[in-house]
Amino acid sequence: MNFDSIVFIVTLFVILPNEAKVLKKTSNTCEDILGDDLIEEIWSYRNVKDDILKYVLDGDFKGKTYDELAKFVDKFGARPSGTDVLEKSIDYMIELTKKEGLNDVITEEVKVPLWERGEEKITMLEPREKDIALLGLGKSATTPPEGLTGEVVVVRNFEELEGISEDKIKGKIVLYVPVFTAYGETVTYRSQGASKASAKGAIASLVRSITPYSLYTPHTGSQTYADGVVPIPTAAITLEDADLITRMYDKGEKVVLNIKMSSKLDENKISRNTLIDLKGSEYPEKLVIVSGHIDSWDVGQGAMDDGGGMFVSWAAPVILKRLHLTPKRTVRAIFWTAEELGLIGAYAYEKAHRNESDNINFIMESDEGTFAPLGLAVSGTQKARCIIAEILKLFKSINASTLVEENSPGSDIAIFTGNGIPGASLHNDNGKYFWFHHTEADTMNVENPDELDLGAAFWTAVAYIIADLSIDIPR
Amino acid sequence: MNFDSIVFIVTLFVILPNEAKVLKKTSNTCEDILGDDLIEEIWSYRNVKDDILKYVLDGDFKGKTYDELAKFVDKFGARPSGTDVLEKSIDYMIELTKKEGLNDVITEEVKVPLWERGEEKITMLEPREKDIALLGLGKSATTPPEGLTGEVVVVRNFEELEGISEDKIKGKIVLYVPVFTAYGETVTYRSQGASKASAKGAIASLVRSITPYSLYTPHTGSQTYADGVVPIPTAAITLEDADLITRMYDKGEKVVLNIKMSSKLDENKISRNTLIDLKGSEYPEKLVIVSGHIDSWDVGQGAMDDGGGMFVSWAAPVILKRLHLTPKRTVRAIFWTAEELGLIGAYAYEKAHRNESDNINFIMESDEGTFAPLGLAVSGTQKARCIIAEILKLFKSINASTLVEENSPGSDIAIFTGNGIPGASLHNDNGKYFWFHHTEADTMNVENPDELDLGAAFWTAVAYIIADLSIDIPR
Repeated sequence: MNFDSIVFIVTLFVILPNEAKVLKKTSNTCEDILGDDLIEEIWSYRNVKDDILKYVLDGDFKGKTYDELAKFVDKFGARPSGTDVLEKSIDYMIELTKKEGLNDVITEEVKVPLWERGEEKITMLEPREKDIALLGLGKSATTPPEGLTGEVVVVRNFEELEGISEDKIKGKIVLYVPVFTAYGETVTYRSQGASKASAKGAIASLVRSITPYSLYTPHTGSQTYADGVVPIPTAAITLEDADLITRMYDKGEKVVLNIKMSSKLDENKISRNTLIDLKGSEYPEKLVIVSGHIDSWDVGQGAMDDGGGMFVSWAAPVILKRLHLTPKRTVRAIFWTAEELGLIGAYAYEKAHRNESDNINFIMESDEGTFAPLGLAVSGTQKARCIIAEILKLFKSINASTLVEENSPGSDIAIFTGNGIPGASLHNDNGKYFWFHHTEADTMNVENPDELDLGAAFWTAVAYIIADLSIDIPR
Repeated sequence: MNFDSIVFIVTLFVILPNEAKVLKKTSNTCEDILGDDLIEEIWSYRNVKDDILKYVLDGDFKGKTYDELAKFVDKFGARPSGTDVLEKSIDYMIELTKKEGLNDVITEEVKVPLWERGEEKITMLEPREKDIALLGLGKSATTPPEGLTGEVVVVRNFEELEGISEDKIKGKIVLYVPVFTAYGETVTYRSQGASKASAKGAIASLVRSITPYSLYTPHTGSQTYADGVVPIPTAAITLEDADLITRMYDKGEKVVLNIKMSSKLDENKISRNTLIDLKGSEYPEKLVIVSGHIDSWDVGQGAMDDGGGMFVSWAAPVILKRLHLTPKRTVRAIFWTAEELGLIGAYAYEKAHRNESDNINFIMESDEGTFAPLGLAVSGTQKARCIIAEILKLFKSINASTLVEENSPGSDIAIFTGNGIPGASLHNDNGKYFWFHHTEADTMNVENPDELDLGAAFWTAVAYIIADLSIDIPR
């Protein structure tokens, strides 16, 4: 880290919604770095940006993103990795794209798991009988048909678990009740909770759902068994039941649960990443990637996670094609598959295309909601960030000029930005994102036509400008 | 209606949260009506009001209302009419009250129904397979074990239903999708929907849940079959699924559902109203009633509806007893039974006590949440309202001085106010009340210790002042 970047970093401050750092623009520095010519060049895209915004917000594309998303989501519903419905939804997207005259569409096969949720039921037996709503976590182990019965040990955090002797955990059910702070922080209790509980001899583990708000809403999600631990059944329960059990436990009451969970796992299914190219006029081999994932959890309808993100990415080449805008570089939309079970599609793409990775000029992903766009969460060098910050200034009229500095933006694209490829995720007004995330409430009711229009217009215009600039985004 | 009251009414204006009219105080008028002596008398209660607030908000009672409510709700959970758990919870409340040295506790038996929900399942068969979450409505008819299968007819309102010929409804499932405006308005589709659909030959009816917000949350509630109609199965579904089916229907798609609903109905159970008296020092036969209902729906935990309301009413005689405050009239706390299936406890009380109804000086009920108190929704003559408005001025410090004029405040007490007895329900900051109402999300997580303290202090002080005034609240 050089002195410049230290100076740069100390001007950052934390903002809440995206748990990331905002670039408090020290405009002199960026102006110096970019130089007048580049700044002027960026501002020369003002008119084309206006054309795109007008076409989407007030023209023929108005409402189209929502309408197409609704048709898609209503037709297919949930699209879990490894299912036929996911593959049919991929075929549908290919057809929809080709109808737009975009014929550079290919798919690349990926081996993915199919984890099929079966019967799930938790019954509190003591101190009183009560059904406890749950959602098993991804790839959870099953219980015997009659279920597992055990006493609950409530822990607030891993440190508390560490402090309890093994004989007090052995044969019991560990319930983690972390209070939601930031997703990236709290989610470790979902992703690692089973392994840590198993290592101390627990027969099952439960986690208070990873959300700040609940209407008795359990939230599923992925988890991974560490090497060498017994894979114990693991599930999320609602905030309400977690807090109920905690109150009982804290009063010294013995809480006994029976947990029944069945599921099937097939690790050898085939799915596909989908690649749509709007070929560049001068450097077709160079790529600006816009992306979202097409798979979803098995609960809800995958409208928000990540139907919206996929559709604003679909919209980018479609809108450019319709407006006869061909940038110098190729704009590639990618619909990742099997994101939810561990970014499987993105890992496969990165591996298959590693020898061409120098050609990725910029990689974008929308997978944190498509509420009103606010800007971008950007990873890259200082000069890269300065370029993006200057581009974002063009979007003041739609209040989407914020650059959030994020070392690891997005989910799938973190694999690429981690390798030094500059990239960004959609920074949007997603304060309620985790209310719906991985639940039955992830439906079209979360989505808003006007906000999707703003997102699609912004996404498209940003991708176009980056793809058409005279210089590559530096690494 | 005389001229005075016309003048009075034209000074009203509508406020939103409680769908009622606010008394825009024409203070001259109220001052004239009350006279200086009465106003001075009311203000003389300032100190005792302060004592009560201090004791509850900062003294020994701080947090007590929440803690006792949590103990109660966590111990019993849902308390549907006709169940053993409801009767045990009544016994518990009697014991809890007697421990406070309040021994004037009696119960009065009431014949109530037990409606036991069985298996409930809706599967969309066309245009694609999907589970549709539901909650059967109170006393709904059952389906055959294999369920009823039929095509859906979506209607926005009763007028639209009226306009469709019977042959297009016969053998089908009517889905009402009213948009939530105000509960009292929208709920008619839940309470009367089955009857109106049945009258046109429908085999079942569904209603979009009566709520402004959903995380895929179905809301149950009561409904009544009109005389002479075939009682068809009827249930509420989520906003999300109602809107999904509506989109499909509006596109011309055929939507076919299979509905399975089982339940048992026993109309001959016995429950009890509970009456707790803090006897008045001068007019023990005269009553100021504070009340809430002890029964709940079978879903959720009945913490908000109406555990909170019952506990602030329980707190009133308890706090007065602890503070050695004995008003001139008796303060009676009543815990109504079987409110949810049709105000059954309240009707029974009214009938049994009709010959003493002149003794009810004022009747209060909290059954619309115990969020931060804002004032009272009052029914009564102009003079009665002026007295209450003057009393409410004493509660400026806790922001609970608003008088909302409401012809029919509360639920149970509407039976009494409809007979001309002056009364009030708790006006509180309940903008989210219908998010939780009659759902699994009615749990302790809705409740807030500080807001319950404010509610209990306010409720107690208001009841004390009314019960101790030199004059009766006029009719």
